Amino acid sequence: MHQSLNRQWLLVKRPVGHPKKTDFEYREVDIPEPGDGEILLQILYALVDPAQRGWMDAGGNYWNPLPLGQPVRSGILAKVVKSNSAQHPVGQFVMGVAGWQDFAVVPEGSVDPIPYDGTQDLRAFSHALGSKGATAYFGLFDVCNLQDGEQVLVSSAAGAVGSLVVQLAKIKGCKVVGVAGGTEKCAWVLGELGADAVIDYRATENMSEAIAEHFPDGLDVYFDNVGGEILEAAMNNLAIGARIGICGMIADYNVSDRVGPRNMWNLLVKRARIEGFLVADYRARYHEAQAHIGVWIDQEKIKYKIDERAGFENLPATLNCLFTGDHDGRMILKLTDDDGIS
Amino acid sequence: MHQSLNRQWLLVKRPVGHPKKTDFEYREVDIPEPGDGEILLQILYALVDPAQRGWMDAGGNYWNPLPLGQPVRSGILAKVVKSNSAQHPVGQFVMGVAGWQDFAVVPEGSVDPIPYDGTQDLRAFSHALGSKGATAYFGLFDVCNLQDGEQVLVSSAAGAVGSLVVQLAKIKGCKVVGVAGGTEKCAWVLGELGADAVIDYRATENMSEAIAEHFPDGLDVYFDNVGGEILEAAMNNLAIGARIGICGMIADYNVSDRVGPRNMWNLLVKRARIEGFLVADYRARYHEAQAHIGVWIDQEKIKYKIDERAGFENLPATLNCLFTGDHDGRMILKLTDDDGIS
Repeated sequence: MHQSLNRQWLLVKRPVGHPKKTDFEYREVDIPEPGDGEILLQILYALVDPAQRGWMDAGGNYWNPLPLGQPVRSGILAKVVKSNSAQHPVGQFVMGVAGWQDFAVVPEGSVDPIPYDGTQDLRAFSHALGSKGATAYFGLFDVCNLQDGEQVLVSSAAGAVGSLVVQLAKIKGCKVVGVAGGTEKCAWVLGELGADAVIDYRATENMSEAIAEHFPDGLDVYFDNVGGEILEAAMNNLAIGARIGICGMIADYNVSDRVGPRNMWNLLVKRARIEGFLVADYRARYHEAQAHIGVWIDQEKIKYKIDERAGFENLPATLNCLFTGDHDGRMILKLTDDDGIS
Repeated sequence: MHQSLNRQWLLVKRPVGHPKKTDFEYREVDIPEPGDGEILLQILYALVDPAQRGWMDAGGNYWNPLPLGQPVRSGILAKVVKSNSAQHPVGQFVMGVAGWQDFAVVPEGSVDPIPYDGTQDLRAFSHALGSKGATAYFGLFDVCNLQDGEQVLVSSAAGAVGSLVVQLAKIKGCKVVGVAGGTEKCAWVLGELGADAVIDYRATENMSEAIAEHFPDGLDVYFDNVGGEILEAAMNNLAIGARIGICGMIADYNVSDRVGPRNMWNLLVKRARIEGFLVADYRARYHEAQAHIGVWIDQEKIKYKIDERAGFENLPATLNCLFTGDHDGRMILKLTDDDGIS
């Protein structure tokens, strides 16, 4: 801990549509001291995530709105550098949610220790071994109740969660079709992730027909990362007893006029289910996902792609890359070179 | 079996919108003979049900479309009058699905024997002890996974299924609000069924606000019999972990332009679930529902209202009463006075 100042990016205006740089303000403050039962974290990586956009709204989201004037809420990987808690010895690595800043004081138990032993890639805990892996794992196996050999559609298949879902479903012997945007992403989903087929939604006139071609007998599982028109198209192609897990609706994040699926009737006809979930509800079981996915990573059955950025000053611009599509893999931003890892 | 002819109403045109009398044709044919493994039923009651409208369409429904020129598909209560099956002795009472006709030959096992012992009201097997009871029972307890004391909204609360759902949820100590149309129905839901409150949708400008007033902390369960705008309004008022069971969508039966709920996002925010179901899938477990509901009927905790009509010639007009709202309770039509019951 050689820094003497705590850099912060504050949310000072609630964004309308995509966040703009003027919605944020930079400042430097003193490094805080942990009180009883608190710990001081040095934040090593900020995880750049679509959910952050929702957290900035005044309401209507699944967390209390972030008050203006506070550091932007963010997933983080961090190290405990001062501790007044027996649960969190100094030197422990943790994952959780904190703010865009170098140092944060948090209550014990509010972040999760990670089984990092120095031999793995720490950054995996931002992805396949972190909340993305848990989202894919519990979404697919718990919420969608995936069975071996089923017919599976995944949207945002080139995204962090989607790419893991494709691979998990392949491990279970399923037929898996990914939906992605653009030739490059589609090639990656097909060639590297091992999907059976991929639909480039940007090049597809009629998504419903495109899905029907791949699944003449209908879908058993649709892992939905986007909502909107692709959800409706999937709902036109359900097998009896189909399950749709709603993990995200990035199509709906920045729009105010929404339309709904006009084919809810199909849920009745097909005895099908749509269920929304938040990975935070599975926090007590993250270790299950980590254990299984860790083995599959070692067996090279699961790959993950990280787009690492640098420079604390670039945090707002990096967030915006999520919505412009200008990134290649799970985006994380390394806050400091003084991370005590190497 | 004193009749010598078999009266039938055939479907001769696929209805557009509400069925018209010209969609049907009356004829008289000989009474058929059962073959090996078949039985001859004398149909005592035809059950008049919204699902019949869907069965008349050319496709897009959950059963094979009824071929033109065949007796209109219908729920029935019947007695076995000739039998080539050990499963179905002559004199057995059954419930199931057959056509609008006095006599029908069906394969063994395609209808369900009912535990009618002459002391009950046989007509209860068209309602609380029949598929309506099973729909309410499995929809509420299995699909919606109702827990004691939860917050429950029921649409079509004055309908056959809805009225049972209201009473079942009250038996489980829930707060129950019914949605119904018109002063008379609303008074019945409140006064006779024991709902905690009722919303008259015909007299309500903003359903979403009306629901919010009754459920400031949100709904745990919405038992949906109608779809459409009321579904969207309910989805604006979900508690975390809410379950919506889609039992019917009568609002969508006779319309071709459908709109979808614009607030699917709420499923994610509230970790909520929408699930469609068909009671036919629970056929092997009907006896569970009958056993429980039978006890509650004896204890006068469950009431059911039957609107009995007469006159085979009136079947098409009676079906139409479903869509005009001109009925008071579960409509059934008695085909004959010669039912061998009394």
